[in-house]
Amino acid sequence: MILSALLTSVGINLGLCVFFFALYSILRKQRRNIEVYAPRLVAEGRALRQGVFSLETLLPTPGWVRSAWRPSEEEILASCGLDAVVFMRIFIFSLRVFSVATIMGLFVLLPIHYLGGQLRDINFSDLPNKSLDLFNVSNVKDGSNRLWVHFSAAYAITGVVCYLLYFEYKYISYKRLEQFIASKPKAQEFTVLVRGIPSHGSSISDTVDKFFMEYHPSTYLTHVVVRRTNKLRGLIEVHAAFVYFKSRYGASSVLHIQQSVNPTEWATEQAPEPHDVYWPLFSASFLKRWISKLVVIVASLFLIILFLLPVAFVQGLTNLNQLETLLPFLKGILRTSVVSQIITGYLPSLILHLFVSIVPPIMKIFSTMQGHISHSGIEKSACGKMLWFTVWNAFFAIVLTGSVASQLQVFLEPKDIPSRLAVAVPAQASFYIAFVVTSWTSLSSELTRVFALLGSWMGGCSGCLDDELRAPSIPYHSEIPRLLLFLLLGLSYVLLAPLILPFILIFFFIGYIIYRNQLLNVYLPKYETGGQFWPIVHNSMIFSLILMQAIAFGIFGLKKFPLASSLLLPLPVVTLLFNDYCRKRFQPIFEAYSAETLIKKDRNDQNDPGMNEFFAKLVTAYDDPALMPIQHQENLNDHNAPLLSSVDV
Amino acid sequence: MILSALLTSVGINLGLCVFFFALYSILRKQRRNIEVYAPRLVAEGRALRQGVFSLETLLPTPGWVRSAWRPSEEEILASCGLDAVVFMRIFIFSLRVFSVATIMGLFVLLPIHYLGGQLRDINFSDLPNKSLDLFNVSNVKDGSNRLWVHFSAAYAITGVVCYLLYFEYKYISYKRLEQFIASKPKAQEFTVLVRGIPSHGSSISDTVDKFFMEYHPSTYLTHVVVRRTNKLRGLIEVHAAFVYFKSRYGASSVLHIQQSVNPTEWATEQAPEPHDVYWPLFSASFLKRWISKLVVIVASLFLIILFLLPVAFVQGLTNLNQLETLLPFLKGILRTSVVSQIITGYLPSLILHLFVSIVPPIMKIFSTMQGHISHSGIEKSACGKMLWFTVWNAFFAIVLTGSVASQLQVFLEPKDIPSRLAVAVPAQASFYIAFVVTSWTSLSSELTRVFALLGSWMGGCSGCLDDELRAPSIPYHSEIPRLLLFLLLGLSYVLLAPLILPFILIFFFIGYIIYRNQLLNVYLPKYETGGQFWPIVHNSMIFSLILMQAIAFGIFGLKKFPLASSLLLPLPVVTLLFNDYCRKRFQPIFEAYSAETLIKKDRNDQNDPGMNEFFAKLVTAYDDPALMPIQHQENLNDHNAPLLSSVDV
Repeated sequence: MILSALLTSVGINLGLCVFFFALYSILRKQRRNIEVYAPRLVAEGRALRQGVFSLETLLPTPGWVRSAWRPSEEEILASCGLDAVVFMRIFIFSLRVFSVATIMGLFVLLPIHYLGGQLRDINFSDLPNKSLDLFNVSNVKDGSNRLWVHFSAAYAITGVVCYLLYFEYKYISYKRLEQFIASKPKAQEFTVLVRGIPSHGSSISDTVDKFFMEYHPSTYLTHVVVRRTNKLRGLIEVHAAFVYFKSRYGASSVLHIQQSVNPTEWATEQAPEPHDVYWPLFSASFLKRWISKLVVIVASLFLIILFLLPVAFVQGLTNLNQLETLLPFLKGILRTSVVSQIITGYLPSLILHLFVSIVPPIMKIFSTMQGHISHSGIEKSACGKMLWFTVWNAFFAIVLTGSVASQLQVFLEPKDIPSRLAVAVPAQASFYIAFVVTSWTSLSSELTRVFALLGSWMGGCSGCLDDELRAPSIPYHSEIPRLLLFLLLGLSYVLLAPLILPFILIFFFIGYIIYRNQLLNVYLPKYETGGQFWPIVHNSMIFSLILMQAIAFGIFGLKKFPLASSLLLPLPVVTLLFNDYCRKRFQPIFEAYSAETLIKKDRNDQNDPGMNEFFAKLVTAYDDPALMPIQHQENLNDHNAPLLSSVDV
Repeated sequence: MILSALLTSVGINLGLCVFFFALYSILRKQRRNIEVYAPRLVAEGRALRQGVFSLETLLPTPGWVRSAWRPSEEEILASCGLDAVVFMRIFIFSLRVFSVATIMGLFVLLPIHYLGGQLRDINFSDLPNKSLDLFNVSNVKDGSNRLWVHFSAAYAITGVVCYLLYFEYKYISYKRLEQFIASKPKAQEFTVLVRGIPSHGSSISDTVDKFFMEYHPSTYLTHVVVRRTNKLRGLIEVHAAFVYFKSRYGASSVLHIQQSVNPTEWATEQAPEPHDVYWPLFSASFLKRWISKLVVIVASLFLIILFLLPVAFVQGLTNLNQLETLLPFLKGILRTSVVSQIITGYLPSLILHLFVSIVPPIMKIFSTMQGHISHSGIEKSACGKMLWFTVWNAFFAIVLTGSVASQLQVFLEPKDIPSRLAVAVPAQASFYIAFVVTSWTSLSSELTRVFALLGSWMGGCSGCLDDELRAPSIPYHSEIPRLLLFLLLGLSYVLLAPLILPFILIFFFIGYIIYRNQLLNVYLPKYETGGQFWPIVHNSMIFSLILMQAIAFGIFGLKKFPLASSLLLPLPVVTLLFNDYCRKRFQPIFEAYSAETLIKKDRNDQNDPGMNEFFAKLVTAYDDPALMPIQHQENLNDHNAPLLSSVDV
């Protein structure tokens, strides 16, 4: 790709961004669209459906940016929960990392590359037709001492990222504990889900009562056996129950100590929030869940492999010559400068974006089939699957073009990975720069919520798009892996093609504004994991760092600079040790609360007169909504909507 | 190797076995040797040092075999502990597996191989000079339908092994629980080792008291801070303590729930038995332990690689032609039939046995450096290291001859592993048959305890071999991996060279008798893990099964029998699923006791008047013997010797 093709792409996308921003600022002011652009405020009863029409409502204004910018983190925490804060911390973290990286890249590495002279094209004339390769590390002469700058940059970037990762992990751990300590009593803290209840003649309910009265008489409160309706609408006896305890520490003891001599019986699990329970789960037996899990693993792998087809197609588009040979009648059109620039610079990324956007719902269905007990569990699992998918298909499959077998071959020869990557990654720099630029548009289009808008306009068809019109929840399982992909790209290319960095920085900046706006106006959190998505982000960043180091290692080998390669070896070791320390220091905080914390909170509650009322409500918290009388069920749905108040039963 | 070389080896080893058996039966009757051959009985005061000399004591008699055979499993459990029973169960399990395998191998597979006709040598004349290869699968014609028999055998053997594994896991789990339920109260059940105690000005002891009085007032009893003497003999305040609780369930709650908000502080760990504590540990800080662990990993890998030298030497010996080229002056001697048979059939295995016997003490030193808190922990860790070492050096390094790099190459191309193994494993069949036969001798020499005997004869030198003369404990970390190697060999060769099976069967039979004798007379258990070595055995068997299936897969490919290869694929999947089930069903039982069990035992104790005395003794159970007054220390050593009574404090 030449510089002018990149500029074309930047132009198109910048234009589209401005268009979407302007469109949004007009559309949101139309009162009939309020359920599309502020469904959350409507659901919470904070938005007025009536408004006065004036000419001003047809003019684009930047007021919404100011309102999105203004709220402090505390306000976002109070209104959207800790998960939303963690999501926004990914942006803040990325902005910090790429601010440093961009300054270093543009002012130190880029001049070295351009003046490198390997590609013998050092003058400044005819800049628009220069290949982007001139700005890559490929242009640095073999064995050049200037590569010490790259070596120092690898250490510096690792240092900065590790420092920021440590800081964020500590900060979010602290927020998580602070939130827990300040929170009101919640049903899930006093509840344990027990599965594999043995039945020897007597009823499940009696067995549960007998067991817990026998072994935990001082802390056991009561229980509710999980029931489900089968196709014939009969109620069935499932061998699972939500067991309630009088104290958090009591519930925690039961949770962490194996209850029965036979580990497959009386298996305990942390109860999810009452409205977070995914009820259909309970129809699956242990064996069925096990088989489902295997099927899901196979299906996910199949999907990842199937996805190589569109990736190959996208690859084909970036190579015009191939296309000309394949479809010779297009030769005339393809030779037009603008068309060829659009096709090589814009279309491939757009197609990839579209295809990638199909996958998250499929992965979510897979995770659902796996038998997780809660919506949050399903999304966490889908997030992990999407991460694998994204890293594989949007990075490795693109970089290492060729058949699946030849791609897998690379990973079967770990020694050769750095040198293979060092050759393959810089070759795709132009494609990824275009990809990042295109992503600005897909981010901005998030603002206008086209499908929801169309649904609202066709509202006459009696709520056929009803679900989409209600306040949706933010799909973390598709958004977080997407952000992590850009972090991965940024770190992979920081030494190779620093030209990508400002575009990534802009991506995160646009995202920061847009998602703050959407979190405040559109998305209504459906659950609260207390920041449990952060460890996924942390681990994925460590992976990106190791990848960056492997590529640097390969580059120094390729550039005949072996001393730097050898001196780079301590870097991954130190990075992994750092990760090991974080895993020991912070990860347990995200898995369970400590005895110290639980006992302190239990003691505080002892003097609270409201606890009797809380326990009275607790015993019905985990009744299956599908089994309640209709009246009751509707009430419950109303309660569910404004989540952050309903979390406190 | 030809049949007569094998027979030479069998002859030599059978002769040596009979010699050692006879020698032992004479030596053990000499009363001056009683401390060598029955040190355990001496230590327990059950053996009389006085005896009457008669001519009969100079004649070999088989009486000891009878006395070794007679005791029931209950008697062994009572006298040697559950770990010894688990060790003997390995023999029983192996005898069962190889009885079935031998019958199938000798009466079904061997005839098929011999009549296979691939090597065109089907007549029965001149049997002694026939190559052993005629009895291997190599002799079956490509694409022969007789390979369906091998296919069925692979399924049958997997079925038999899995059934027996399940049975053993269940049986040993049951024994473990039964032993726990029947046992008297033990110090370690009421004790938790706490590390990372924060000190903010006040003394460690005060901090511990304050923390546990605050959060576990109802179950906390008292504690003892771990002290150590430094080189200047000063006492130092270590940030660790043994904390005592009033109930097992109380200790278990503290153990399984993270105590502090900061997971690196107040880290809890199951306390080992008081006499099992490895005191020097406490001199290592967290950072020091971390670095030690890294150093140990590197050192172990280095040892494994270094060991390829003797392996290559052994390999050279089995190939006489190479030796002749290298040392031409030996040509005359090497051409002598007996010498060549000894050199190819006996010497290589003997050398390998000698070299392998050097490694376990080194691995134990490595594990000690790693900072485990107990002798049992050190031996379990060393057992794992030895298993890696054994599988790598005594199997893969021998089978896949060549440089380390070329061996590693195999594992970097997983797809090719089966076909590589299918070529390489049958080629080493003769070597391993000789290896198994040689191991009979090394087993029998265990009986005579040559070094201990020499030490006893030189007893005049005032107890210079004092340690060896005392009752030793059985070195599980060297014995278990050795047995597992033979199980691995047997399963790897069951389809390829069934001629090895009867020799392995004899190995386990001799071992069964010898180790029963040694456990009853020689070894005194120094600790009791309650059978925690079994999961290692189980997992290693699953590995062997998968290896067997991979080799079978490769063989069918090599023999141009692709349908059987494809139909074999479900087998490893089913095996891994079986393992997954066992891991869920049984493994937790070996990691911790359930709430049900602990609470039941606690309740039983409530009415026991002896508990006050127990608690009074408990508080001094974990005092460092090195810090006690000399008088006290000697008392303690005396107590330590007859372990099974001292386990109950």
